[in-house]
Amino acid sequence: MKHISSRDNPAVKALAKLAGTAGKRGAPVLLDGVHLCQAWLQHHGAPDQAVFDVERLSQPDIAALAAAVPERDCLALDARLMQSLAAVESGQGVAFLVTPPAPELPDTVDENCVLFDRIQDPGNVGTLLRTCAAAGVKRVFLATGTAAAWSPKVLRSGQGAHFALAIHEHVDLPALLPRFKVPLVATALDGARNLYEGDLPERCAWVFGHEGQGVAAELLAAARLKVCIPHDMAAVESLNVGAAAAICLFEQRRQVLRGARR
Amino acid sequence: MKHISSRDNPAVKALAKLAGTAGKRGAPVLLDGVHLCQAWLQHHGAPDQAVFDVERLSQPDIAALAAAVPERDCLALDARLMQSLAAVESGQGVAFLVTPPAPELPDTVDENCVLFDRIQDPGNVGTLLRTCAAAGVKRVFLATGTAAAWSPKVLRSGQGAHFALAIHEHVDLPALLPRFKVPLVATALDGARNLYEGDLPERCAWVFGHEGQGVAAELLAAARLKVCIPHDMAAVESLNVGAAAAICLFEQRRQVLRGARR
Repeated sequence: MKHISSRDNPAVKALAKLAGTAGKRGAPVLLDGVHLCQAWLQHHGAPDQAVFDVERLSQPDIAALAAAVPERDCLALDARLMQSLAAVESGQGVAFLVTPPAPELPDTVDENCVLFDRIQDPGNVGTLLRTCAAAGVKRVFLATGTAAAWSPKVLRSGQGAHFALAIHEHVDLPALLPRFKVPLVATALDGARNLYEGDLPERCAWVFGHEGQGVAAELLAAARLKVCIPHDMAAVESLNVGAAAAICLFEQRRQVLRGARR
Repeated sequence: MKHISSRDNPAVKALAKLAGTAGKRGAPVLLDGVHLCQAWLQHHGAPDQAVFDVERLSQPDIAALAAAVPERDCLALDARLMQSLAAVESGQGVAFLVTPPAPELPDTVDENCVLFDRIQDPGNVGTLLRTCAAAGVKRVFLATGTAAAWSPKVLRSGQGAHFALAIHEHVDLPALLPRFKVPLVATALDGARNLYEGDLPERCAWVFGHEGQGVAAELLAAARLKVCIPHDMAAVESLNVGAAAAICLFEQRRQVLRGARR
């Protein structure tokens, strides 16, 4: 494996430029750490390039990752160079350079899916992607104005969920609505049905909204069903969007699993 | 109201020292922004001190806060001084100096409650507090090693939940277990019952664990019931701790609400 110890090496310079950036549309991103690299391998195969801390190449988990990537695409870096690429202080000694998949928008949508309506906080977006994948959702649509899915913070809180999902970014949600064959279901505080009263659709398009403003009026108006989570309103005004989504998606999953057992 | 325009004023210096600190045990903290100050007023009454951006005192929401605090405890600061105290760049022109309540540990615990076992991320701790309050929980116990509840980041993501809860910090959880009259329920991956199979206790002590390590072995061993959330394990290894807690606490709430309707 090629060993690099100079900060002026062109490959290192190019990687340093990418590290910590928010993942511009279509640009490659740097996946930082053992877990994300393992998850990428599992779902997408070899990365465009892999970089390793030369001092940690003998660690079993790092060695296994190195063995899975063609040697011509691997670089061993001095520890201090590797550290300068890590998104967090405690870098784990491995990073993959990958090109995020950019799936084409489907002509019709008839599967269970989730719409992110301008969710701002990268931690919320990452957690929500992780919850979607955990709930068995396969496809998500992120409206323009949502935090960039392939930014380092979102990748970190997604914990590999990115690779189990088709992620459509920069979507004009209202314009997409005619393609949905499944009903649109929104969380709302006013004019909404208690989440636990009556059955949920087995498949639908859930929409979760902006942390302060909630779901956009245009989408709320188009929703076939509006649900609210019956919470203690004397204690707090509302739930965090990630918590609300977890409650809704897993209530649907509970109902589907119960139905399957019958 | 006293108006201050000098950075060298002793009161401003003292506030600047507190701003952005993690809330040492027993020390006063600065609540930043309209929503947190309103929530404090609602639950605890007047703060120790209130500071306002002099240019925004005529805004209705700020004026209402100023009217609710005795004038001797109010300070009007020049905008740039006020901004230097704000935890976020877009300060809202108001902050309350308050002393966090430090409730005594109860001798016996027979109510529904939540134990935080070394949860590291301040955003997770804040979201979890908000979810607990929303689920109707009134009391939480934070193990030593959990992120400080009264730090600015936790306060921000808690969105006022702090004031609706009795928060016990720096707790030795294993040592506290003999005081629990309600069963201990833990989330676990191994040897756990499907969350949705069978009823949950109407009241219990939930324990949620460290982001990487999960619930400590000593607490797992003491749990009367271990539950797992049936998620798509091919997609992601696990759920975020805040999402998992939301799913568990609201599944319990669903069952309790259903029982009440019968």
